[in-house]
This record gives sequence, C-alpha cells and structure tokens, in this order.
Amino acid sequence: MPLKGRKWMNGAEVLLRTAVGSGIEVCFANAGTTELPIVIALDSTPGIRAVLGVFEGVCTGAADGYGRMTGKPAMALLHLGPGFANGIANLHNARRAGTPLLNVIGEHATWHRSADAPLTMDIEALAATVSEWHRTNESAEGIAADVAGAIAESLTGRIASLIVPHDNQLRECPGAEIIKARPSFAPVDGREVEKAVQALRSGKKAALMLGRRALRKRGLEAAARIKAATGCDIVTETFPGYMERGAGLPRVSRLPYFPEDAVAMLSEYETVVIAGAHDPVTFFGYEGIDSFIIPRDREKIPIGTGGQDMIAVLEDLAGSLRAAKDITADEHIFASLKRPDLPEGGLTGEKVSFVLAALQPEGAIIVDEGLTTGFPYYQISAGAPPHTLLTITGGSIGYGMPCAVGAALACPDRPVINFQADGSALYTVQSLWTEAREGLNVKTLLCSNRSYHILEMELERAGVTSPGPNIRSLVGLDGPAVDWVKLASGFGVPGTSVRTAEELVGALGRTLTETGPFLIEMVL
Amino acid sequence: MPLKGRKWMNGAEVLLRTAVGSGIEVCFANAGTTELPIVIALDSTPGIRAVLGVFEGVCTGAADGYGRMTGKPAMALLHLGPGFANGIANLHNARRAGTPLLNVIGEHATWHRSADAPLTMDIEALAATVSEWHRTNESAEGIAADVAGAIAESLTGRIASLIVPHDNQLRECPGAEIIKARPSFAPVDGREVEKAVQALRSGKKAALMLGRRALRKRGLEAAARIKAATGCDIVTETFPGYMERGAGLPRVSRLPYFPEDAVAMLSEYETVVIAGAHDPVTFFGYEGIDSFIIPRDREKIPIGTGGQDMIAVLEDLAGSLRAAKDITADEHIFASLKRPDLPEGGLTGEKVSFVLAALQPEGAIIVDEGLTTGFPYYQISAGAPPHTLLTITGGSIGYGMPCAVGAALACPDRPVINFQADGSALYTVQSLWTEAREGLNVKTLLCSNRSYHILEMELERAGVTSPGPNIRSLVGLDGPAVDWVKLASGFGVPGTSVRTAEELVGALGRTLTETGPFLIEMVL
Repeated sequence: MPLKGRKWMNGAEVLLRTAVGSGIEVCFANAGTTELPIVIALDSTPGIRAVLGVFEGVCTGAADGYGRMTGKPAMALLHLGPGFANGIANLHNARRAGTPLLNVIGEHATWHRSADAPLTMDIEALAATVSEWHRTNESAEGIAADVAGAIAESLTGRIASLIVPHDNQLRECPGAEIIKARPSFAPVDGREVEKAVQALRSGKKAALMLGRRALRKRGLEAAARIKAATGCDIVTETFPGYMERGAGLPRVSRLPYFPEDAVAMLSEYETVVIAGAHDPVTFFGYEGIDSFIIPRDREKIPIGTGGQDMIAVLEDLAGSLRAAKDITADEHIFASLKRPDLPEGGLTGEKVSFVLAALQPEGAIIVDEGLTTGFPYYQISAGAPPHTLLTITGGSIGYGMPCAVGAALACPDRPVINFQADGSALYTVQSLWTEAREGLNVKTLLCSNRSYHILEMELERAGVTSPGPNIRSLVGLDGPAVDWVKLASGFGVPGTSVRTAEELVGALGRTLTETGPFLIEMVL
Repeated sequence: MPLKGRKWMNGAEVLLRTAVGSGIEVCFANAGTTELPIVIALDSTPGIRAVLGVFEGVCTGAADGYGRMTGKPAMALLHLGPGFANGIANLHNARRAGTPLLNVIGEHATWHRSADAPLTMDIEALAATVSEWHRTNESAEGIAADVAGAIAESLTGRIASLIVPHDNQLRECPGAEIIKARPSFAPVDGREVEKAVQALRSGKKAALMLGRRALRKRGLEAAARIKAATGCDIVTETFPGYMERGAGLPRVSRLPYFPEDAVAMLSEYETVVIAGAHDPVTFFGYEGIDSFIIPRDREKIPIGTGGQDMIAVLEDLAGSLRAAKDITADEHIFASLKRPDLPEGGLTGEKVSFVLAALQPEGAIIVDEGLTTGFPYYQISAGAPPHTLLTITGGSIGYGMPCAVGAALACPDRPVINFQADGSALYTVQSLWTEAREGLNVKTLLCSNRSYHILEMELERAGVTSPGPNIRSLVGLDGPAVDWVKLASGFGVPGTSVRTAEELVGALGRTLTETGPFLIEMVL
C-alpha cells in the first residue's frame, strides 16, 4: 500500500517489503533526514517494528544481540557516514561473532553527493571495514535485488551494509517484485571432513575446537557424539559469540584470556580440529610469546572453512565417524545440574559469579561483559540450568548493554542478565533508555570497581608498580565514582546498590521475580 | 629521562617529547593495552597532561574544542580500530571546522598483525575517512619525523592521524633527536587576491563570505577594513567552527539552515568572495532545489584555496584595496552593546535565547548545539559582550558536550556555556563525567524538548501530518523522558530543572557566579 498520491511503491517501501518478506521483523534505528522515506515507510509496511536507540552504538549492538539469539538478521537503520561510524565498534563485535546483520544507511541524493555537503563522508570506505558485503544502491529499480542479496549474505553469519541514496528511496518503482532471500551455505567439503576423521581416529590426544554456529544446540549435540565416539575434548574460544550451556548440555572448556594459560591448555593436544573457531591467537602481541596459541609442532585441522554451515559439517563428521546418535547422559560429556553455595560477606568478583550461577533461572540469557570481574563465572556456572552465554567476541568494549537490549527483544519470554563491567558500560550507557522505553526484561549486574582493571593488570605485567598522576588518571574511574543508581534512574530504569553477597542475593532474587529492566550496582 | 633499566628513550617517549616540543600540552585519551607504553611515558614526559574520556567520542570532541580555541592541536590517544571508530563522528566535525588535531592510535605489534587477533581492523582505512594526513609508523627510528610531520600538517587546520604499532613504541631509539614542527602555509596567491579586488571594486553588490581562520579576530578585523573600503557585506556559513563576535566586533550575517531562506539571502548579491568558507550548499538535497546556494548566474571568487593562511590572505586583500587601517566604530560595521530584555513566563526556544544573550558574561565561550531550539540565538545575541561561538560544523550530532570539555580545558579562565539539544546531548553524555573529574567551568543549558525536533520539521516538509507508531517511536524522546538532573548527578555534575524564563534567569545567574560544572535542564 503505497502512500496516497502515488500509484506505485517507492524505493523505501520496496526496501522494507523485501526485508519483511525475507524474515526481518525489527529495525533498530537512529535515522535522519536522508532516511526519512524509509522512516515513513516503516508505518506503511506491516510486520516490522522500529526500535529507537539514542546512539548508533546501541542500534548496532542491539542488532548484534538480536541476530545472535535468533540466527537471523535485524536491520540497523543509520544516518549517513557519521551515524554509521558511531555503530562500527559494535559491528566489529558482531562480525567477529558471525552474527547475521543488515545495515541500511541513508546517503545524500545521488545528484547532491558532489556538493560535499556538511555530512558527506566516504560511507563505502567505512562500511568496508566491518562488512563482508557492502554496496551503494544505484537505482530504485535495483533496491529489491540489493536488499535480498544483502540479506542472503547476512544469513550465512555475515554483516551486510547497503547504502541507499535519498532520491532512490523516494523514486517510484513500477511493477516492483519482492524477492525472498535465502542463505547460501556452501556444500560440506568431504576431503576436509575426511582429514578430521583421520586425526580423530589416529589415537593422538585431540581437541575439537568449536566456534560460531557450532556452539548452537545442534552443533553441540553433534560435537558430543564425536566426543563419545573418539574421546576428544571439546573446547571453545576465549570469547564465543553465542553458546548453549549448563545442565544437560555438553561440557565445553573455554580458552583462558592470558596467553600463558591459553598456551598451557592447548599444549596438551597433539591435534586440534577447528570447527567454526578462529585459529586461536593471543589477544594482544606479547614480546617473546608466539601469536598463535596452538604450538607450531601440533596438527591443526580446520573444517568448514569455505562458507559451509558448521552444523551440517559437524553432523557430517559425526556420521563419517559412525558416532552413535543416542548417547548416554555421561557426566564426562554432559554437565549435571550443580548450583554453587551462596557466598557471604563483602562482594568480590568471584562472589558475584557464585551468586549469579546460584540464582540464574533456567533459560536465562547471560550477556557477559564482566571482563576481569567476570573471569571466574564460566567455570562456576558450568552446572547451572540450561542457559545461553553471549560474550565480547571482538574485544570492542561497550557491547554488553546494547547486546542485552537486542537479546531481550529477540526472546521476550526469557530473562536477560547483563553481567557488566563499569568501564565498558559507560561506552553505550544510553542502552538503558531503550530498556526503559521498551520495558525489556534486562537485569544489569553492574560491576563497579571504578577502574579499567584490565589495564591495571597489563601495567603490572609491564612492570609498572608505582604509577604517576597521568597513568592513574587514565586507568582509574574514581574521582568521581559514577552513581549508577542515579544514572539508571535518569534513563528510566530502577535500580539499587549492593555491597555484600547477602544484599546481592536479596536484590537479584527479588528482581528475577518481576519482569522489566533493573540495575544492580555491585560496589566491589 | 627514559625508564629505569634502559639507556635510551623508547619510541613512546620520543613520540611524546616530539609532541611536547611542538607545543602539545594536553592528551585526551582512552587507551588500552596497545597504547600502554605511551600511557607509561606520559608520566616520564614533563609538560603534557592526560585527560580521560570514558568514551572516545568525548576524547576527539574535546580535542576539537581545544583545537578550535587555541589554534593548536591537542593529542587524542585512541585504542586500535574500534577506539578510533568511536571517535570518527566528532573528528568529522573537527575536519569540517578546520581544527588542528593530532590522533595517535595504538596498533598491534608489527609481528602480531597477521594473526588477525580479535581487535584487528583496517585502521588506515578508518583514518583515511576523516584525516587529511595519516600514516602507520614503520619503525621506532621514524617516530620523531612522523610525529613532527603530523603536527606540522595539523597546524594548518587539518586532522593528522598517526598509527603506532606496539613494538615500535617499546623499541629503544639510540640518539633520537626531537624535531620541532612548524605550520607550512602556502604563500598568498596574488592572482586570486587581484580577482577579489576587481570584484569588490566593480560596483556590483558584493558579499565577503568568511569561514575557518577568517573568523578569528585578525581575520575579522581585515574583513571590517575591506567592508569599510568597499561596502561589501560580511557573511558566514550556517555552521561556523569558531568565530569571535559581539559588541565591538564586526557584524557578520549567518546563512540560514533551510535552503529557501539561504537562497533568498545570497540571491541579493551579484558577486561573492569566499574566504575560508565552503562554497555554500544545502545541508541535504531537496528535490527541485539546487545543491549550490549561490545562484549559478552570480560570480563566485574563492580566495586562499591552496592551503594559505586565510588571515594573511585577508590582510593582503585589505592592503591591495588600500583599505584604511584605523576605521571608525561605525555601527554599520561593528556591533554595539545591546542586551535583550529578559522574557517572562513558560520557556520557549526563543526565550532561552533571550535569557542567554541577556546574561552571558564577557568572554564567554558559547558552544551551540541547540539545533532547532538554538536557531534564534545568533541574531538575538549579536550585541552581547564579546564572546566566542562554536557550532556543529559537520552536522554530526554529539559534538557540543565534548567540545565544551575541550574549550574549558583550553581556556580555564573563561566560562563555557553549552547550549545543548537533548537528542544530541545523549550521544556523548559521558562528557559530563570528565567535566566533574576535571572541575571544568562548563554550564550546560540542556534544551529538553524530548524529540528530534529537526526530524519533525523535515517530516512536515515531506507532507507527513499524522505519523504512525513507528515514526513516532523514531522521532520522539518521550516515554520515558530523560531526567537530566539525575543523569548529570550520576556523573557527578550538579544541576537543576527549570520551566519558566524567571527560573532560568535565576538558575543561570546563580551558577555564573560560581566556577565548576552545572547543568540546567530547561523543560520546553
């Protein structure tokens, strides 16, 4: 139904019909004049809901969280180069997570670009830094094909960015046909799988290293069969994008953050089959330590490297190994339900992890940007009821707050618990406003240690024991300490502040019985 | 003085010595592990002060404000690609303002880059979108020359971005010599000036359109002499980066925002001499309206187009016109002191402008991101005591809050008044924390109209009279309304909320008698 006064849909309407026809239901947006025809079309297109982020990092981070949870893209609608630039940091995390995501960026009218108006930037150059697929739409007639192409690309776990000039959004498209996008995974590569079969049957001590779609439930089930059949260990990256875990699900060891610990863990294996994970490397380059964590004399077998669906690859591998389909609930393979005891006394990072693992409800979505405070959580929560864990794949801080927004919109019936470091939270603190507006069931566990503690640890590694005033200024977040309860309240989110394990147990227990956003400032 | 255990300075120390030797005194930073050697060197290098921004948009926006006020660069120290990306939007404004600015971005160690670690991005591609000069340092020995080259470029009003790998920061530099950077303006082009002389003497109705350095005091004085000698009008862009104005300074007309009004203003002239300004274009492309505002049959004479110092160009032009050096305080040329009367009753955007113009102290720095609310301010404040006006040159919102931070650090003895729209303020609201930490004398006049009102105006232009739920969701900032006093307080900045002109007069009057940050939420 085009707007009155027109016979045909315009480019903006074709864009949205194509998106909705290919399964897009949510548009996280902060739009401006160049996207106005799309904004207007959002109300004449049934089946899509607009959600405002009051900063673009919120929009792209929310689209990341949404895409991780649903496995399909949300649309992020962004305003020209500066608006897109504000979203890059979280798109970087999304790209590293293999999140399906569609960016639509408005551009000046084609005839206005050469005027170099104030907001003009090289949007394509910006888009290329975080998008596997990017294009500037050349004509209104091409919009349906461009959008469908972008979505098809995104469905294989990629970032697609489509730049649409304002005049093409406005132009009428006589007889436009809506195209439905489908994911285009490559077929499983039998030779790759055969190499993995040989390695896993060789008798060498082996690890199966999972990443991306391999950590979804079906991928994990196939991995469990492979483990039962071969005795390999199942491991994952330091920062997996999405994983199902907890009681009844396969146990997966996680690679530690600091390089010495990570090397120690992987040195135990003679062969590592890498399925959807990055060949593991140290987070930063440390003098005297190899970038690559798997020692160079070990065997590395990457599988599914050519754009295959990693779930299909693992199921094929399990089949090739003649792995049994029904495996017993072996405690060695599957985690059993085991809640930790509740801690007492003044809060520490470890105690926070114990409380969370003890109280988190079945089906919880745990967004982990707790960083240094959150390091112990993974192990402590291994036996919690089944839950989903999302982590900071690209290391670009400010991911957790908006990711929680997107996860909550994707799964309105599941509680989202955002385990959140204070320094990172400040990057995209505006997310709280969207939580309030949309009434999202996000519980923020805010770790207030009032410092960039990871930097303190790195300074210690660098031998700095008595930092001067400039270092202290750049590492400390005290003076003044942020009052997180006031801040949240300013954005419309209620909250409370706790200093002991008992207070945290009380506050978290209470808020988990209610729906809606809540922030708990945990003073560490 | 290198750190103990080393005989020579390392690359990071050479970098900072070179920067300080070339006049850099402030480093706005949010650093990470890849910048740690520079962070450490900040304490062993006398003469530079580190200021933490808890989001990179604060750092780059503050460096913009600092550079506009001082005419020399601050350093922004940023963490890899994602950290730089977070700073792009405000670098875009800085670039459009012609602000001198030096970015230093840490990069992974040279030998670690190919490992494609989680934070790895194409930093050069990002830097190229907003920097006139950018380079990745290739060796520790080259750091002094790279930094000096970057600063020399920045001093002519440009953005320079230097990417420094972690290992080059650490490497010792035997016998390193510190290089002092100097600006390298091109000589005045006599032929350009002669064309302007002919045009201004031709008897045609003429405008002299000023931008960038032409709006600094010496530029304005030269323009006033030219006006006195030729009768031309003095005009400026819609969004000048920096201008001196008020009582005793030359009157300058400002180009209106909407294209019809802008075209109407410039159509009055047969010839326009453009000195440091962009050839004026409409902010967006509007169907049926030319991108270029000066009608195509008029004469346009750009001067100083080849990297000249615009002040020198204007002084040369005044000399070539044999313009008198001592001109009388003609009311036609210079503004006289004239404060508006204080308004009464419920606040409107216009009343806010009247109150501000009536109360702003001599020497105030007015950061204007009031957008729709601030439109009337320029004319109303023409006769206020001498002050400096900074505006949103690149149209990338979120500039005002950090710009005020940088301006206050640059000019600690002058009050900074940030006339700030709410939608824009939310983009870089973290600036309030730096105001609190540094005790900056910034008074934020927060226009709370709870909408992206510019979009409402553009929707009206597009004929949308009854917006549906998606449009309302993307244009409105109500539901919930941000509580700005709580928000500011959460960051450590005291504030109050006002609803009438009388309350605003009281609150602004009181806070101007004190130093330190304060926020006034003006409910419109």
